[in-house]
Amino acid sequence: MKEKIVLIENRLKELIPKNSSYQKVLFEAASYSLLSSGKRLRPLLVLATVEAFNKNIDLALDPAISLELIHTYSLIHDDLPCMDDDDFRRGKPSLHKAYPEWLAVLTGDYLLTYAFEIITNAKNLADTKKVKLIRALTKYSGGDGLIAGQVIDLSYEGKEIDFEKLKFMHLNKTAKLFLAAIEFGCIISDATNDTTNKFVEFAKNMGLAFQFFDDISDYDDKKSSDITKNKATAPAILGIEKAKAFALDLQKRALDILKSLSYNTSFLEEITSKMT
Amino acid sequence: MKEKIVLIENRLKELIPKNSSYQKVLFEAASYSLLSSGKRLRPLLVLATVEAFNKNIDLALDPAISLELIHTYSLIHDDLPCMDDDDFRRGKPSLHKAYPEWLAVLTGDYLLTYAFEIITNAKNLADTKKVKLIRALTKYSGGDGLIAGQVIDLSYEGKEIDFEKLKFMHLNKTAKLFLAAIEFGCIISDATNDTTNKFVEFAKNMGLAFQFFDDISDYDDKKSSDITKNKATAPAILGIEKAKAFALDLQKRALDILKSLSYNTSFLEEITSKMT
Repeated sequence: MKEKIVLIENRLKELIPKNSSYQKVLFEAASYSLLSSGKRLRPLLVLATVEAFNKNIDLALDPAISLELIHTYSLIHDDLPCMDDDDFRRGKPSLHKAYPEWLAVLTGDYLLTYAFEIITNAKNLADTKKVKLIRALTKYSGGDGLIAGQVIDLSYEGKEIDFEKLKFMHLNKTAKLFLAAIEFGCIISDATNDTTNKFVEFAKNMGLAFQFFDDISDYDDKKSSDITKNKATAPAILGIEKAKAFALDLQKRALDILKSLSYNTSFLEEITSKMT
Repeated sequence: MKEKIVLIENRLKELIPKNSSYQKVLFEAASYSLLSSGKRLRPLLVLATVEAFNKNIDLALDPAISLELIHTYSLIHDDLPCMDDDDFRRGKPSLHKAYPEWLAVLTGDYLLTYAFEIITNAKNLADTKKVKLIRALTKYSGGDGLIAGQVIDLSYEGKEIDFEKLKFMHLNKTAKLFLAAIEFGCIISDATNDTTNKFVEFAKNMGLAFQFFDDISDYDDKKSSDITKNKATAPAILGIEKAKAFALDLQKRALDILKSLSYNTSFLEEITSKMT
């Protein structure tokens, strides 16, 4: 896994423009957020899926990076004072604390736009695949995906929410970018629709499990701003024991799907097993 | 021109999702901003360019709409308290005044993402053209385009700026989306690179002229928040007479380029002439 993270980190660094014109500060701010210590889970999932099909991961690197840009833009905007108002992110001041707030808004907009540009310029991918990748990215990160998750999260802050709404929120806010990652891998590897559907079903269980484990870990640590703000979390709604059982069940389902597939899914299994 | 605006307005209404799930408020907010009384100048320029090549404007409608979405997202984010802090837009409360501020941020993000989705789903356009359109859109609206213009605008608020920086700002913040519109029309119409370059040169002069006339009109009316905030404008830097002469010269250059082209540019001429 380590050498793949190095590959991702190096390509990320290469892709940030070194522009010295009037807007230089924009690229500095983008570096500040992109090059902090992320787990790079979404790009890793793209590479792991391409590896499952025994395809060349070099083909997948730039599309994988685009998902890290989308994830990072969503964190930058999510941290803003009018959103979650978080002063820290990945162990350092959030972008709007390190730079002016207006620049944090614009850096998010820039990363969102640049994610699409990177896909259009990816080497050795046919235009048909690029269009499929971009369509998938908009589907999972737009108004029926990531952004829908944010809307429900903020709509219900401080209000009672039931388990169905919580799952809708977690599915959209967290799992959908995992679905995007897995579907990216399938598109790049020319997987059939049927195979893609199975991989995407894996991603749904895996992505939800990830967010449930994250809720549980925050609950155990009592560290998260989600807890202090009384945000909806799985342990708050289900109780800690039920929440843990639910997360483990989702993880098991995800692993079972992988086992049922006749592909080289060992790296996907490793990522899924390490979540707890 | 009127029937084309009706075409654009109707397609805009069709394209806003009528979704009744938890994120319904997102699409309501998007309608609020999209369906206010805009001039629809950017989509009109796409249609006018396609008409110059005697191509079917139906092919261009959805890509044209995507530019209106990009323009609208940029206005929504621009109006935010941490940016220009404008309470009114197009004669009614700005989005963050009519809805919670967090929803204004997310609606901007949604429109930006949805613009790309609309291009991927445009009917009767080859994938090669879709990729070209998306690449052009990111080039003109990203960190070397619209967003660069915003960065310099906010970086220099309340500070002295010279005429070169003002032109850089106006070129990026305003003219670049006009360039995108004209290049969209050229891509859809299979124009050669040489012809495209000439049309883009027209758009550069035309887009700059538009922003100079806008500065001058605000100065004459003393109505704009740009004036009350002491933002950099052409009349403030050059004096009103010189600014007017400069704008007229840009407009004349734009019209001269159109006249030099052997295409049916009457609609482009009409739009350019009406700017004053």
